[in-house]
Amino acid sequence: MRDYQMEINLTTARKQKPAFDQLQFGRHFTDHMFVMDYSTEKGWYDPRIIPYQPVTLEPSAMIFHYGQTVFEGLKAYLSKEGQVLLFRPKKNMERMNRSNVRLCMPPIDEAFALYALKQLLSIEKDWIPSYEGTSLYIRPFIISTEPFLGVAPSNSYRFMIILSPVGAYYKEGINPVKISVEQEFVRAVQGGTGNAKTAGNYAGSLKAQEVAGNAGYSQVLWLDGKEKKYIEEVGSMNVFFKINGEVITPVLNGSILDGVTRDSIIRLIEHWNIPFSERKISMEEIYQAHKEGILEEAFGTGTAAVISPIGEFYWQNEELKINNGETGELAKKLYDTLTGIQYGTHEDPFGWRVEVLEEALKI
Amino acid sequence: MRDYQMEINLTTARKQKPAFDQLQFGRHFTDHMFVMDYSTEKGWYDPRIIPYQPVTLEPSAMIFHYGQTVFEGLKAYLSKEGQVLLFRPKKNMERMNRSNVRLCMPPIDEAFALYALKQLLSIEKDWIPSYEGTSLYIRPFIISTEPFLGVAPSNSYRFMIILSPVGAYYKEGINPVKISVEQEFVRAVQGGTGNAKTAGNYAGSLKAQEVAGNAGYSQVLWLDGKEKKYIEEVGSMNVFFKINGEVITPVLNGSILDGVTRDSIIRLIEHWNIPFSERKISMEEIYQAHKEGILEEAFGTGTAAVISPIGEFYWQNEELKINNGETGELAKKLYDTLTGIQYGTHEDPFGWRVEVLEEALKI
Repeated sequence: MRDYQMEINLTTARKQKPAFDQLQFGRHFTDHMFVMDYSTEKGWYDPRIIPYQPVTLEPSAMIFHYGQTVFEGLKAYLSKEGQVLLFRPKKNMERMNRSNVRLCMPPIDEAFALYALKQLLSIEKDWIPSYEGTSLYIRPFIISTEPFLGVAPSNSYRFMIILSPVGAYYKEGINPVKISVEQEFVRAVQGGTGNAKTAGNYAGSLKAQEVAGNAGYSQVLWLDGKEKKYIEEVGSMNVFFKINGEVITPVLNGSILDGVTRDSIIRLIEHWNIPFSERKISMEEIYQAHKEGILEEAFGTGTAAVISPIGEFYWQNEELKINNGETGELAKKLYDTLTGIQYGTHEDPFGWRVEVLEEALKI
Repeated sequence: MRDYQMEINLTTARKQKPAFDQLQFGRHFTDHMFVMDYSTEKGWYDPRIIPYQPVTLEPSAMIFHYGQTVFEGLKAYLSKEGQVLLFRPKKNMERMNRSNVRLCMPPIDEAFALYALKQLLSIEKDWIPSYEGTSLYIRPFIISTEPFLGVAPSNSYRFMIILSPVGAYYKEGINPVKISVEQEFVRAVQGGTGNAKTAGNYAGSLKAQEVAGNAGYSQVLWLDGKEKKYIEEVGSMNVFFKINGEVITPVLNGSILDGVTRDSIIRLIEHWNIPFSERKISMEEIYQAHKEGILEEAFGTGTAAVISPIGEFYWQNEELKINNGETGELAKKLYDTLTGIQYGTHEDPFGWRVEVLEEALKI
């Protein structure tokens, strides 16, 4: 870890906190934020924790025009014993740097970013809600800031971490959702940016989501961009199926995001000795499995929602109901185990939990 | 056109203008900008021309995270007689609205946007450079501004128009450039956002550009995302070929940008009775034509560079030199004609020029 000098400037006007038992997702932000700047000449410089405040940029700042940006999403959990817990945070910092490579953005010092995050969490501990299913969502992101209208990598960036106390991501909670299999729009294609966590992937996904929403579906199932046959993701989550006792998830092919929850589920399933494969899987195969009555479960996975069971697929004018539209046993067990590990109520066989220790945070 | 009330607030501190004979692209901005806001409740409201100034947004503003944004690019030209000329500006406003649809963003009133642009140009007339090849680049853009971390269309937006006096986009001017045919990265795929003018397309293109640049090439030739066979665009431009007397450009297939310069060139070529076709064209076909000695010209087209002749393709370990690496006759004629129409020195058979008349601009 580089030896940065971090400045900490605390607010004198703390905000009133929202009611923690009625939290929405991503609407409230804490009192402080982490900020660090980058220039080609200086590298990353001036790391600081400052009062949460607006960002001021030139109208020509490249982020507004050419979208060079990456982000991450993770959560801090408050255990019953009052510990602040993170879940595999190194994975997020590593992925942020993989995204940085794809977007021609400068790498961050992963260890320092995690250190800075812990510092920020230590200051904002009171913002971590303790109701079931609530947590403090963490959004690290980097934006390009150079005032220049040419299509080229920016020479300056800003790295920020903001925090938001959150309730469930989907209003439905862990209830199964209805999903439309997307036939027209494509989220990503090999050679594109699908495996990077960058803004454009999300902007491009909104239209399909809007069309599906108007037809009464919560989200879309994304097929591959080449043949529109193979399953990639669901909404902004990875996707898993259980067919005749075997768990299957699409193999990472360059256009699928390498989800931290996805990876954790794979490791749990293997740990439980449940038959598992990571491979190409077509919508036709899902259809056939459903027809034969062996499509036992389907669910999305991601940091925000953890597990989102799928109760029904709509594909080629047919409704494929899964597990009577109810949450499957495996989805439930995974949800309970993962959230148990995250909140500290379940044993942590893989050492995924990282405690934010306040004594380690003295500067 | 909607009857908006436009506020005009002029600066009291005009900037020193850069040397107009040494202009780079997109580095300097004028004294004023146009701004208009949108909310789901109010629609577009508060259109105003104000001193050029920074934009202040919440760190959670959706533009930073999910990239919902569109932009346009066009130019204002100063004729020898001192007229301020635009080139087919309605096409840009129309395309902006097509981009808005794809990005789930609210439509603008195209006529009002053009009116607002003319007002702004009238105020900034002194910023239009008059040296050959220089112009005032116009960048209308809309960003999503809602402070919310959920993946959904924003409920608030800001529409801005900024102006930048520019010289040639490429340092090489209209000299031919060397282009590497991209085999790994993909700009866009059908069903994606390739035909919308939105930030993510450009962010995703930087990596290929960087790799090509390091290998000594100016830009890449983009192939289709499905089969990596068919030609789509070159750099951030449309692309044309002349093979055995016939001009060919890739047909708009949903992943190619519908360029205003592209459309203008097609109409000029048809007007000149040059054989022309708009169709799928594979890199293999280009290779064969080169081998047979009938690949006469290749060039990129776009607002920023107008025409950018291609002197060489690098593909599968072979260098395909075109027209001895020199600017072709057709490219030259198109450049001269188009810029002649734009600057008012050439007749305008299609009525493409739009004069910004100051008397029409009184409020």
